[in-house]
Amino acid sequence: MPRDPEDIVITTGPIPGSSKTYVAGGKDNALRVPFREVKLEASANEPPVRLYDTSGPYTDESVKVDVYQGLPRLRDPWVRARGDVEEYDGRTVRPEDNHRKPGDPRTYPDFPVRNRPLRAKPGKNVSQMHYARQGIVTPEMEYIAIRENLGRSERADAGESFGASIPDVVTPEFVRDEIARGRAIIPSNINHPETEPMIIGRNFLVKINANIGNSAVSSSVSEEVEKMVWATRWGADTVMDLSTGKDIHNTREWIIRNSSVPIGTVPIYQALEKVNGIAEDLTWEVYRDTLIEQCEQGVDYFTIHAGVRLPYIPMTAKRVTGIVSRGGSIMAKWCLSHHKESFLYTNFEEICEIMKQYDVSFSLGDGLRPGSNADANDEAQFAELRTLGELTKIAWKHDVQVMIEGPGHVPMHKIKENMDEQLKHCHEAPFYTLGPLVTDTAPGYDHITSAIGAAMIGWFGTAMLCYVTPKEHLGLPNRKDVKDGVITYKIAAHAADLAKGHPGARLWDDALSRARFDFRWRDQFKLAMDPETAEDFHDQTLPAEGAKVAHFCSMCGPKFCSMQITQEIREYAEKGMTDMSEKFKAEGSEIYQPAEKVKQAAAGDD
Amino acid sequence: MPRDPEDIVITTGPIPGSSKTYVAGGKDNALRVPFREVKLEASANEPPVRLYDTSGPYTDESVKVDVYQGLPRLRDPWVRARGDVEEYDGRTVRPEDNHRKPGDPRTYPDFPVRNRPLRAKPGKNVSQMHYARQGIVTPEMEYIAIRENLGRSERADAGESFGASIPDVVTPEFVRDEIARGRAIIPSNINHPETEPMIIGRNFLVKINANIGNSAVSSSVSEEVEKMVWATRWGADTVMDLSTGKDIHNTREWIIRNSSVPIGTVPIYQALEKVNGIAEDLTWEVYRDTLIEQCEQGVDYFTIHAGVRLPYIPMTAKRVTGIVSRGGSIMAKWCLSHHKESFLYTNFEEICEIMKQYDVSFSLGDGLRPGSNADANDEAQFAELRTLGELTKIAWKHDVQVMIEGPGHVPMHKIKENMDEQLKHCHEAPFYTLGPLVTDTAPGYDHITSAIGAAMIGWFGTAMLCYVTPKEHLGLPNRKDVKDGVITYKIAAHAADLAKGHPGARLWDDALSRARFDFRWRDQFKLAMDPETAEDFHDQTLPAEGAKVAHFCSMCGPKFCSMQITQEIREYAEKGMTDMSEKFKAEGSEIYQPAEKVKQAAAGDD
Repeated sequence: MPRDPEDIVITTGPIPGSSKTYVAGGKDNALRVPFREVKLEASANEPPVRLYDTSGPYTDESVKVDVYQGLPRLRDPWVRARGDVEEYDGRTVRPEDNHRKPGDPRTYPDFPVRNRPLRAKPGKNVSQMHYARQGIVTPEMEYIAIRENLGRSERADAGESFGASIPDVVTPEFVRDEIARGRAIIPSNINHPETEPMIIGRNFLVKINANIGNSAVSSSVSEEVEKMVWATRWGADTVMDLSTGKDIHNTREWIIRNSSVPIGTVPIYQALEKVNGIAEDLTWEVYRDTLIEQCEQGVDYFTIHAGVRLPYIPMTAKRVTGIVSRGGSIMAKWCLSHHKESFLYTNFEEICEIMKQYDVSFSLGDGLRPGSNADANDEAQFAELRTLGELTKIAWKHDVQVMIEGPGHVPMHKIKENMDEQLKHCHEAPFYTLGPLVTDTAPGYDHITSAIGAAMIGWFGTAMLCYVTPKEHLGLPNRKDVKDGVITYKIAAHAADLAKGHPGARLWDDALSRARFDFRWRDQFKLAMDPETAEDFHDQTLPAEGAKVAHFCSMCGPKFCSMQITQEIREYAEKGMTDMSEKFKAEGSEIYQPAEKVKQAAAGDD
Repeated sequence: MPRDPEDIVITTGPIPGSSKTYVAGGKDNALRVPFREVKLEASANEPPVRLYDTSGPYTDESVKVDVYQGLPRLRDPWVRARGDVEEYDGRTVRPEDNHRKPGDPRTYPDFPVRNRPLRAKPGKNVSQMHYARQGIVTPEMEYIAIRENLGRSERADAGESFGASIPDVVTPEFVRDEIARGRAIIPSNINHPETEPMIIGRNFLVKINANIGNSAVSSSVSEEVEKMVWATRWGADTVMDLSTGKDIHNTREWIIRNSSVPIGTVPIYQALEKVNGIAEDLTWEVYRDTLIEQCEQGVDYFTIHAGVRLPYIPMTAKRVTGIVSRGGSIMAKWCLSHHKESFLYTNFEEICEIMKQYDVSFSLGDGLRPGSNADANDEAQFAELRTLGELTKIAWKHDVQVMIEGPGHVPMHKIKENMDEQLKHCHEAPFYTLGPLVTDTAPGYDHITSAIGAAMIGWFGTAMLCYVTPKEHLGLPNRKDVKDGVITYKIAAHAADLAKGHPGARLWDDALSRARFDFRWRDQFKLAMDPETAEDFHDQTLPAEGAKVAHFCSMCGPKFCSMQITQEIREYAEKGMTDMSEKFKAEGSEIYQPAEKVKQAAAGDD
């Protein structure tokens, strides 16, 4: 039984050791751009470290979030101030939107607040790309420029960017230019004004997406809302709601109203529910109606598998794992049973017409992505990719923002070809990949098999990495799986930023490494991607408070700590070798902590 | 308090769904080379899958292991048959070997069985390299040839090997030739005849090492023995005993006598214990005595930080994290305090003379490896690497086997340079790296930060990857951490094998992917690197027995299963498009499993 929404328990409060700070900017300094700020111990003598923060108001101690009201509608005045939108009544929500028959009792209530939707006035286009191409810098772009700079002013490392054009400092104009040429997108439906603007593009920080959503056999609405909050707490830059089954409309509404990150969906899932799961019964009309329903709710990007064309389907017949994309297989089935070209492909221009009225971005789905190493980079996959490139051009004709989805399962030596082909055929539209998994042999560990591929393809130029959790191929991820997936993908994305030489990416590593070298244990925990786990692991062997200031850890014990020895070497190098040689001889081994001290620390204070 | 060895509880029995099989070979078919064999469901209509097996007799149901007696001494007759060794009394074990004063009560007993050690007869050299260079194929080489072929006869994928020379089929002669030219090593101390021979080299399967060992503040002997068995159960190809503190000699004896994989150590750790932890008091004599002690016990490879030369030490002074290698920092301290060149460097030839009497391999330690991204690929690191190359030539002059240790912490764009420099300066001696970690920001997840780097450097040509556990930088790994580290590194190593195009590596992936596509859930679990976790994760959402044969999982539920839909597409492609189009229309949606069936499966059989 689905639970009552009263059950919704949302995780709030700052990440341990961090606090929310805001950097003001934009016209009249009216923008307040959030960061996770880590204040270091006084002994560090370093300024606080600012980290990118996806967690929204939930981690701001001064904000009380009411999930029954939804988040503040930050962008609403920006959208209205542009003067090109109109409020209207919108589509009436129907029982089949939640996959229910008329008169069925609802097991889950409507979201308590209903805002009338906005859309572009007739003849207008409200996409960020449209504004950018007219030379307009929107508040969204200004906000993003501040956010991407992470409060830094220096470039730490050069890196190897494979031809990307990463600037030393991100300006609002740079953001605009990248949007204008389609090399980046700002997913920002005018009906989801709760978002804190973010950008996805090769010349910006690599982003990650977390998938959530119930399925016909598991999970409830309240769990999904908390999963969204939980995923963004740990670093998800966008969230895809992949719900199927009952309550699909209502689940999404609760998620969007409470989400400060862009929300993506795969509309064909809901369309299929509306025709009772019979792919052959899908029609353009049902699909179109679903798009509008979701545009009005505020979905920021749609995965649309318009590249699964009829002639490509037989190319998958000899694969080891055929078609593994849900949307791709649904469309393949439709095409086959009607022996017709996909209605997503034939109606693509009309889809663009709809999306530009709300500024929904395309995530052109890779319905024919490989589901095993054996199928990687095959004819079917690359045929579809070229079609996605053609569709990108059509979308751009309408000033609709586009990103391109990518695989999947790919052994390491075939990863770069994916990026190269995507850049070649999709005109530098942002690439958004699922992993890829570099081996098929480790179910239960596919966050790791895929993080290897994700880090590499992120380095090569992929703009957003869709996470994979430990439950991939096995079941629906729970809360722990979501966190494991998000942290693992933050690692992959940050590793890619470092390798690309993103200016300032290494400041975080250097701050943590200095803390490590100085034995500032608390600073190490605070600066960790996951401070809770770092501290917990440390405390498993040395729980005493005294060990937090000890110049060693349980891995080596006090006598062997190389870090401690190096402190001396540094002093030595500064003072000259001969002097120090004498000094060492005179002092004996005082640099070691006496073993008794250690044992006391290990045994606890009592 | 250290526990009584009676507490030793060893994990035995096969990995779920697998069984031990042996392939006969060698002269008179006397060799029995073990594999993990996975028999698939009858419906698969496929032969059993053979996987490389590091787990030793512990997973053989027909063997009863007695840890108080140690493992069968498999290689002992091979060693003696060569006629170039002699038994002798060996060095007397002294209280200080266990870091105890004379008369101290022992908290941990001696291993119950004592074998008199072997050494080369005067003027003889018993290294595998020495035999290889004389054109001799040893039983060890024959055994390895069978083991590396994994029972396959076909090449599955091409890959990109960056200039490696991987043969289609490994022959004993190929093994010999690789050993002769130093491009691979067989760690095989004549006093550790319990080992199942294995090889480390760029043209063979990528191997992984697991570090275990107590420290002054944590762990006991029995825990360490079980950690060794546990690590090899999940895939560790070698184990390093990095114990420090008390009972160091006895701990090692228990581990070696019960280990079927080569054991490595860092002798300077024990030498330092013998001089009460005062680095300045180390002498060549104490170190030499420790080498002989460990040669007689059967240690298969020694990490020796002979490349930490006096002039390189000041190069580390400006680093963010100085010297992070324990052995490196001990030697740096010795060099500084005496203002002398390292006694490991100045006595290197004598070390070779000792090691060739027992066939102990060098693992030339990278004492100046970077401990942070900021320090990667710096002057100190590469100065030491070039010295390791010089030392390699000296060792080879003595026919002593050598591998070279590598970093550490390296961002992705600087990884390949490590491999290239190593190949260039170390004459293709096998590279053995720790990770590398591609970011410093995720303590608690360093198995993942490092697996990304490990997979890449393995692909580029590294022969063995030293695992990193989730506890890295935080504390001593426990049993769960050891397993997490091993499985994560098996993933990295196997991903590297796939990308290098190792013949047959992909057979495993393909078998698992076919099982996945056919909904043979039990076969998926059995073929997984970790069948227990795979099945457990599946059962968390669909525990019923019925779900194990269902054509879906809880991730998508029955209506959306793309795998199921693809089965149809395959049929369709075979029968022709027009026919099938009619058939689909006539049959409706019968391909879907009715939802009721699913619910029953999810709810359990009762």
